[in-house]
Amino acid sequence: MDYSKQFRVTPGSKVDLSQIDAGFKDQHESHAHALPEIEAYEQKLQELQYLMYAEGKRSLLICLQGRDAAGKDGTIKHVLGAMNPQGCTVSGFKVPTKTEAAHDFLWRYHRATPEKGQVAIFNRSHYEDVLVVRVHNLVPEDVWSKRYDHINHFEQLLHDTDTHILKFYLHIDGEEQLKRFKQRIDDPTRHWKISDGDYAERPLWNEYTQAFEAALSNCSTEHAPWFIIPSNHKWFRNLAISQIVAETLKTLNMQFPEPTVDINEIKQKYHQMAEESK
Amino acid sequence: MDYSKQFRVTPGSKVDLSQIDAGFKDQHESHAHALPEIEAYEQKLQELQYLMYAEGKRSLLICLQGRDAAGKDGTIKHVLGAMNPQGCTVSGFKVPTKTEAAHDFLWRYHRATPEKGQVAIFNRSHYEDVLVVRVHNLVPEDVWSKRYDHINHFEQLLHDTDTHILKFYLHIDGEEQLKRFKQRIDDPTRHWKISDGDYAERPLWNEYTQAFEAALSNCSTEHAPWFIIPSNHKWFRNLAISQIVAETLKTLNMQFPEPTVDINEIKQKYHQMAEESK
Repeated sequence: MDYSKQFRVTPGSKVDLSQIDAGFKDQHESHAHALPEIEAYEQKLQELQYLMYAEGKRSLLICLQGRDAAGKDGTIKHVLGAMNPQGCTVSGFKVPTKTEAAHDFLWRYHRATPEKGQVAIFNRSHYEDVLVVRVHNLVPEDVWSKRYDHINHFEQLLHDTDTHILKFYLHIDGEEQLKRFKQRIDDPTRHWKISDGDYAERPLWNEYTQAFEAALSNCSTEHAPWFIIPSNHKWFRNLAISQIVAETLKTLNMQFPEPTVDINEIKQKYHQMAEESK
Repeated sequence: MDYSKQFRVTPGSKVDLSQIDAGFKDQHESHAHALPEIEAYEQKLQELQYLMYAEGKRSLLICLQGRDAAGKDGTIKHVLGAMNPQGCTVSGFKVPTKTEAAHDFLWRYHRATPEKGQVAIFNRSHYEDVLVVRVHNLVPEDVWSKRYDHINHFEQLLHDTDTHILKFYLHIDGEEQLKRFKQRIDDPTRHWKISDGDYAERPLWNEYTQAFEAALSNCSTEHAPWFIIPSNHKWFRNLAISQIVAETLKTLNMQFPEPTVDINEIKQKYHQMAEESK
């Protein structure tokens, strides 16, 4: 199945998350069943990342968004962790620092965008400024409502400089979130990760749904599409994302650069060195 | 074998690289023979990196140095690439930019040091400023000769703020370097990587040996040791480095932090949420 078509939010369409099955797993029965396919895509991903690095002309920006426990960290560890760290940066965005807050809302994200040849992963992203900020009224509506346009312009700017953008909304339902919260509570080695805030957002489930739907509807564009990834099954999420990233990189038709030197000359140099070292 | 003892440069000792066998492979016969051990250390490394991230109190800085084709990139890909990119940054240092060159020589490296809980890998490092800079007389001797002390003080500063430092010199001999140059020439997909500079340093082999020996002798300290890793066999290099990094992290006795919340309260909250969602 071509997940980059299936899960892509059509630009201009209106997203209704209640119509999308978070437990979807296509024709796959289990993790074991999907594993060979996941591994094949990860292999491809590594090769294509190397090619991107070698070519040094394009870059890739991956944004991960989702509710608490949707699996952002797990996606980085299990899918995107396959990439060579030498060509890949991961940026997490928490409450802005004083310096960050003293700039426009896009400033801190812009600084973290990938240079040519590199992949950047945003664990949460500039969309926080129309999600948590909107839900908690951290700025007035006339401020956040303008941000959708600002985001689209920002992403257009990146795209025009050959930064390809993929945005994944990790879609889980309420039952799955509860199940994952319970797993955290039951595992003492994960207690250190639990904060009061973790459970504070759940009563705002519907407000977040509205905010996500607005972001997905307003900001899925040809040049920076949103994908809604059914994520109740972690392995299916990994399969879908690794496929979409690998297939997208493939469409870029990247090429190894031409040698910058005369290889025959280099060969002569080499033979001379080999002679001298005898 | 405890490689962190075997390959560590004793502080205050005088290094003579000609006395060190770059082809050493201990009792291992082949890559296949060493593979289970390498994989076990990588597994350990992942667990300990997660613990470092969770604890958030200490950090690790790994510096890789070596001649052309010594295997710095390969070490990152095959050993350090096992780590979660979310807790790990890789910085490469090339010819300084105008801004970088307008500061003291340590400025750009200092900016790239790891924050607490994180691992930073330097692909080439502040040692370039007493290696290539010294060999090519890019600054006068009375400038570079002071840098060993500056480096030791800088590393002491990092150590005192709980940044643990491991420095690896990837030791290959002249024959092995030639062999690797030949492999590059024979592989068309690697021609793009060849530059005129690649072969320009080889006639300066002895000058580099002296510069490496001085750096290794002057800057291996209790708090920031140098290790000389026999690297003719890539798999042995991977084994030794993964063992030293994993064993070093183990000695830090890191702990998962205590929960910041009352887990019983959280359990109650959870049950309330579960009730409400019925």
